[in-house]
Amino acid sequence: MARKLGIFFAIFCILLTSSLADWNILKEYKTTNSGLKISLKNYCESWRMNVELHNIKDYVVIPQECVSYIAKYMTSTQYKVDSERTIDECIFHLSTNCILGKDRKDAWIFDIDDTLLSTVPYYKQNGFGGNKLNVTSLEDWISQGKGTALDHSMKLFNHLKELGVNIFLVSSRKEHLRSPTIDNLVHVGFYGWTSLILRGQEDECKSAQGFKAEVRSKLISNGYRILGIVGDQWSSIEGLPSAKRTFKLPNPLYYVA
Amino acid sequence: MARKLGIFFAIFCILLTSSLADWNILKEYKTTNSGLKISLKNYCESWRMNVELHNIKDYVVIPQECVSYIAKYMTSTQYKVDSERTIDECIFHLSTNCILGKDRKDAWIFDIDDTLLSTVPYYKQNGFGGNKLNVTSLEDWISQGKGTALDHSMKLFNHLKELGVNIFLVSSRKEHLRSPTIDNLVHVGFYGWTSLILRGQEDECKSAQGFKAEVRSKLISNGYRILGIVGDQWSSIEGLPSAKRTFKLPNPLYYVA
Repeated sequence: MARKLGIFFAIFCILLTSSLADWNILKEYKTTNSGLKISLKNYCESWRMNVELHNIKDYVVIPQECVSYIAKYMTSTQYKVDSERTIDECIFHLSTNCILGKDRKDAWIFDIDDTLLSTVPYYKQNGFGGNKLNVTSLEDWISQGKGTALDHSMKLFNHLKELGVNIFLVSSRKEHLRSPTIDNLVHVGFYGWTSLILRGQEDECKSAQGFKAEVRSKLISNGYRILGIVGDQWSSIEGLPSAKRTFKLPNPLYYVA
Repeated sequence: MARKLGIFFAIFCILLTSSLADWNILKEYKTTNSGLKISLKNYCESWRMNVELHNIKDYVVIPQECVSYIAKYMTSTQYKVDSERTIDECIFHLSTNCILGKDRKDAWIFDIDDTLLSTVPYYKQNGFGGNKLNVTSLEDWISQGKGTALDHSMKLFNHLKELGVNIFLVSSRKEHLRSPTIDNLVHVGFYGWTSLILRGQEDECKSAQGFKAEVRSKLISNGYRILGIVGDQWSSIEGLPSAKRTFKLPNPLYYVA
């Protein structure tokens, strides 16, 4: 009996603690324009959802009150599951419709940051999206080659290699970061791509979307069929020419136009 | 003291009950391909997120195990907050960049189902997206004119009228539903649109996306500037010609290509 009571009390304490930990984020935060009473979690979740729906664009920082919510998401199991599902859909797409050709001209495009390599370790040390981006500091971090592999993307990357699909890495990183970028990619296990395309000086005034669309245009005029693109930013996958399918990984941390 | 203990016990009971209600959805559900141990909530949330990211397409029914999760979301405060945020972004877009012209040729396009009128009451009675759509039964319901107004969209609708923007309602509903559609819209408070464009017999073999893109093409050749589109399906807003901005409301209940 005493043991049962003990277990019951332990469960009670766990529930109470976990409930109180969420209390701050769950209690009433504000009333919306239409009169809905919402919690901070409601607010931040709707912000994140509308970022992923691409209704909210061009933000420079995460709303200050949502920084800890976004930090929690980006380091959660949910972020991993969401990303893994995106990659599973890529693999499913590759398995259907006999899309592979026999002329070795099939191509797939990957973004790098937060598609192959996680920048979460950087943002963890730098305000988690709540501070305006300091390009110099981010580039310093990149040149240390400390980006960690996103495991789900590694699975797709290796699958594409097995299928004989040409892999193109198209990133907004600048040319002077080529060497640490290659080191970082190879070090964590990404190798065997066809080409790594970074922003040269002539591309610096272009938007990321414009630069990436031009790259696709060149690939197509070189005879490649772009089976798919996967990126964490809409600017990596929107614009013409496009691919047979595009896939957007979740990433509310920052916005690249 | 006794009162304090009573309050403490009441809080304990509330916490325990609410925690147990979530227990089923929170306990370990499965291990993903990559070895992540996830709950059913993780799984269904990643499904919903990837639907909204447009990575998952052409689904006929919601995964059976997620029907109650989706039902909960579609009747939640979170769904309302998510939708309201989408509409707030539309209103913000209208307030910026001096986008309004002076020739009364500004236009805005609305979808109807789950953009102006909610079909949730129908799906509530019909398996909540877990059953294959029965078109006859849905059209029967539509012809009863029981769709409820989505309040946030009403706010945008009335704001556009005040601004003197032409409102076009472009829906995949068929022509024979014109009369109950108008009755339903007016009854709940939507009136004063410029044109209601439904699918005629000649459009029945077209995809929703193809049909809606053609409508936009005609509007543009009639001299209209489409300032924005808001819809709950990607097929309402994707394809060319487009609008200055497009806005996607959340809706994981069903998929229209």
